[in-house]
Amino acid sequence: MQAAELETFLDEVFPQVRGDYAIDHVEPMKVTVRLKTAERHLRPGGTVSGPSMFGLADVSVYVAVLAMIGPKAMSVTTNCSIDFMRKPVANVDLIGKCTLLKLGRALAVGDVLLLSEGMESPVARATLTYSIPPRD
Amino acid sequence: MQAAELETFLDEVFPQVRGDYAIDHVEPMKVTVRLKTAERHLRPGGTVSGPSMFGLADVSVYVAVLAMIGPKAMSVTTNCSIDFMRKPVANVDLIGKCTLLKLGRALAVGDVLLLSEGMESPVARATLTYSIPPRD
Amino acid sequence: MQAAELETFLDEVFPQVRGDYAIDHVEPMKVTVRLKTAERHLRPGGTVSGPSMFGLADVSVYVAVLAMIGPKAMSVTTNCSIDFMRKPVANVDLIGKCTLLKLGRALAVGDVLLLSEGMESPVARATLTYSIPPRD
Amino acid sequence: MQAAELETFLDEVFPQVRGDYAIDHVEPMKVTVRLKTAERHLRPGGTVSGPSMFGLADVSVYVAVLAMIGPKAMSVTTNCSIDFMRKPVANVDLIGKCTLLKLGRALAVGDVLLLSEGMESPVARATLTYSIPPRD
Repeated sequence: MQAAELETFLDEVFPQVRGDYAIDHVEPMKVTVRLKTAERHLRPGGTVSGPSMFGLADVSVYVAVLAMIGPKAMSVTTNCSIDFMRKPVANVDLIGKCTLLKLGRALAVGDVLLLSEGMESPVARATLTYSIPPRD
Repeated sequence: MQAAELETFLDEVFPQVRGDYAIDHVEPMKVTVRLKTAERHLRPGGTVSGPSMFGLADVSVYVAVLAMIGPKAMSVTTNCSIDFMRKPVANVDLIGKCTLLKLGRALAVGDVLLLSEGMESPVARATLTYSIPPRD
Repeated sequence: MQAAELETFLDEVFPQVRGDYAIDHVEPMKVTVRLKTAERHLRPGGTVSGPSMFGLADVSVYVAVLAMIGPKAMSVTTNCSIDFMRKPVANVDLIGKCTLLKLGRALAVGDVLLLSEGMESPVARATLTYSIPPRD
Repeated sequence: MQAAELETFLDEVFPQVRGDYAIDHVEPMKVTVRLKTAERHLRPGGTVSGPSMFGLADVSVYVAVLAMIGPKAMSVTTNCSIDFMRKPVANVDLIGKCTLLKLGRALAVGDVLLLSEGMESPVARATLTYSIPPRD
């Protein structure tokens, strides 16, 4: 699946976050997803909240899996470890750079670096495991 | 600090989530926090979203630390590992039961079980580390 | 399976760690496993090494799963998060208290508290996920 | 510190693992460490054990921090999350490729990919946090 198709699919299955994310780049086993930062994602001082960072990491791996296996299978997150390393820059988008390290029949594992747009040092890193249901 | 004071403090420092959480119980090294589930916390089917589960786990440990050391120090999350084990029950509150396993000078570690209200098996578990800034 | 059977099975499938572990207690969804601390498990100062703590946590969940599903299925660790919270006491056994939080068809999740024998505060906590292969 | 100095320092402070590790490469914020696989690191079938994989990940981040801040400070592991993704190849060395993502005054965070020598797909990945004691 390509970026535009993936965005349309996300909007359909997760209407609650419609418009929150843009898919900047897709290649085999890698995607870049953008949180279009808005007031509802922020904490006092204008920095992105922890749940919004978690959400971006989670969506990034979801999209990376979807891009590889297509929209049929509904995979679910089983585990996430996330390290918060620096304060995000206020009032800029947050970028999730995801690499799939494993795409097995039953489990996928993806690493994500989260960066405030325009900065080089990551604000957070996360690893997520998705359980992929048996295919028909 | 007691439950009512903790709720007031939360509302002041995190106005973005005002009204989302209730503090059901506080005792030394343990707290129970409730996510008053509303439409903005849900995914299709009425189940609580991953970011909302993460948010409840995060707030639970934050409140447990606050209850012990008071409102002066602003601690920040440095790490979280979370396992999603069962689908939450639709349209009921989510309960976070937190136990502090360590409350050191610089780091605190708390375990959280997340349960759909009325159920015995946890929907998720999480462990979070907070960095506590040096006190004056 | 009961404690004696479990110990015999461990010795057979993991001859490299024969004699390292004793199974102190088994009940549904819970086990207590003991690392019989020896020179090869230690670091300077007589405290148990990180890999030995990881090993005890890993074996504890393995045994807890085995106790429930029997010796046929060879489950494998897919994920571990572990927090090291206090220095172990020198020259005493290390105790792993494991609770299975989930025992599904494909995945099991167990929590482990690691304690120096005779102490109340845990030296570490860990959560592990095991992948359980399809049964015949 | 350079590779030879780091190996000498490791041998002195951790005599229990003397000879287990070689430091293949050191550059700012990155190191490559090799587990010279021997019988004591293996499980039946000749694959590297979980505790040995954990040990290599742990040493890799330790060495990466040491290479940057020198031998004075004794940092300690506070947290590790590790994903086991593929079976290691039997009877070859295991390589740990570590990148420090954060090197703060109090906390360092490092990512490690573990690879069976000669293979491209990682057998495991890990992230570790080290607590760095205040410097004199």
